[in-house]
Amino acid sequence: VTQRPMPSDPLNTESRPQSAFQSVAIIGLGLMGGSVALALRETGFSGQVSGWASHPSDVDGALRSGALTRGAGSVEDAVRDADLVLLAVPVRATCDLLGDVAPLMADEAVVHDIASLKVPVRAAATEAGLLGRWVGGHPMCGSEASGFPAARPELFAGARVWTVADRGARESLERIEAFWRALGAAPERTEAEPHDVLMATASHLPQIVSTLLAGAMAQAGVPRGDLGPGGRDCTRLAASNTGLWLDILAEAPPALRSALRGLGDEARGVADALEAGDLTPVRKLMERGAAWGRER
Amino acid sequence: VTQRPMPSDPLNTESRPQSAFQSVAIIGLGLMGGSVALALRETGFSGQVSGWASHPSDVDGALRSGALTRGAGSVEDAVRDADLVLLAVPVRATCDLLGDVAPLMADEAVVHDIASLKVPVRAAATEAGLLGRWVGGHPMCGSEASGFPAARPELFAGARVWTVADRGARESLERIEAFWRALGAAPERTEAEPHDVLMATASHLPQIVSTLLAGAMAQAGVPRGDLGPGGRDCTRLAASNTGLWLDILAEAPPALRSALRGLGDEARGVADALEAGDLTPVRKLMERGAAWGRER
Repeated sequence: VTQRPMPSDPLNTESRPQSAFQSVAIIGLGLMGGSVALALRETGFSGQVSGWASHPSDVDGALRSGALTRGAGSVEDAVRDADLVLLAVPVRATCDLLGDVAPLMADEAVVHDIASLKVPVRAAATEAGLLGRWVGGHPMCGSEASGFPAARPELFAGARVWTVADRGARESLERIEAFWRALGAAPERTEAEPHDVLMATASHLPQIVSTLLAGAMAQAGVPRGDLGPGGRDCTRLAASNTGLWLDILAEAPPALRSALRGLGDEARGVADALEAGDLTPVRKLMERGAAWGRER
Repeated sequence: VTQRPMPSDPLNTESRPQSAFQSVAIIGLGLMGGSVALALRETGFSGQVSGWASHPSDVDGALRSGALTRGAGSVEDAVRDADLVLLAVPVRATCDLLGDVAPLMADEAVVHDIASLKVPVRAAATEAGLLGRWVGGHPMCGSEASGFPAARPELFAGARVWTVADRGARESLERIEAFWRALGAAPERTEAEPHDVLMATASHLPQIVSTLLAGAMAQAGVPRGDLGPGGRDCTRLAASNTGLWLDILAEAPPALRSALRGLGDEARGVADALEAGDLTPVRKLMERGAAWGRER
């Protein structure tokens, strides 16, 4: 990826640093993959960007926007000649694709996925014999919207991107880190298991809670327009793509189940305390939540 | 309140419409009361705005910002001569204040409160003999922050303000509606009971869920900085003022308890479905939430 020269360094405007990759294949051109393509174009990347998506309209949109240099007719067509194969599809499809692309990739090519869970993807990469060339990633950004029309080049600006790689893939990892930095993101190394456990609480739990809250609104006949800003924020994720999320939830670690049960019990506990007219336990929960919410 | 002339009506720049009130007393100068004072100033209101708050720093802040014409030394001092007494304090304090201000208010003065529940306030207004001059309100806007430093003049722009008034207070209601429209808000009439039942789902439930979600993050050791935008949105309300909310929850209608129990049961149900490996019920919940979330 060609990094933009720093505006404060006028001597550097002609000599861009060498790109981490020369030819990028993006499989999946929805919100995430589409945004990578758009962000690459914004950095002034001068190499090939080929793309394939299961929805032809996403390929068309990405081509029309100038984010791709080539729309590929198949995964095989996209991957050929690429030195970076970026998989930007849901977690199950990512695992399947790793097996598909392994025999198609150039010998020196790196494969990078951005699925929401890393344990199943790491297992698939191992099985596909790609562990030395695989780098897992998870950008902590996104939206409840999906498809290329929701993509935007600034999506990754300032976002943390968790990265996971085998010890033997250190050089690939460093190139992927440079790739994300060029897109304005902040890569940070972790391992597959702690990543997935973190996501159970940090990502899957808020998604399910938002879904349940939206369901309560639907049941009570409260339209979205009757919510204040707080209620709207809490239910925004409910509009997320169901298929994508079922895919994640099927692979979610057991930590999610215990978090859900804990939250469910506490919700009942609050109801019981309100009924008993003793708000002491509710005060404790609110103080705990507020202390956390005010932390830096 | 002096309304700004429409920019499209140049003939009207010199002749502002008559104000709904000439002298406004604001009791409570936190996020809500402070924002009313600031918004009033922005409309070019030329009458008196006196204010009192239990935190002297809020009075000082409001005076320094020019939002008040007079800082009052007491509630009695603030209310004297006002033709609008605006109570911008939590629900329990609102009920108490209604009894306090009743003997202090000028005969023609209107009292308007903006507490989050209307059933208890209506009962207090009845008891104070103010029902013919009381208009209840609830602006559907706000923030997790509190105190005058969080106040901002545009807080009410476009916000719905639920209003509740007795049949005998129709003229007062119309003046309060004009007051809110001048501040950019959209008043809408309702009654105390349906208002409070609506809030149980639309406002109290998201607050508690956000609190519980923040607690789960705290327990799992997930710092706020490790959340993506969705997780941050879902937990924003957790930083809300605990005292203010305990006050609301103590008066919340039974609908809140059943909503909490329903949500708690569903959270457990999702955990059980994940454990059983059958995502059919989870799919149904997600589709229901997504359908609601995508409604206009």
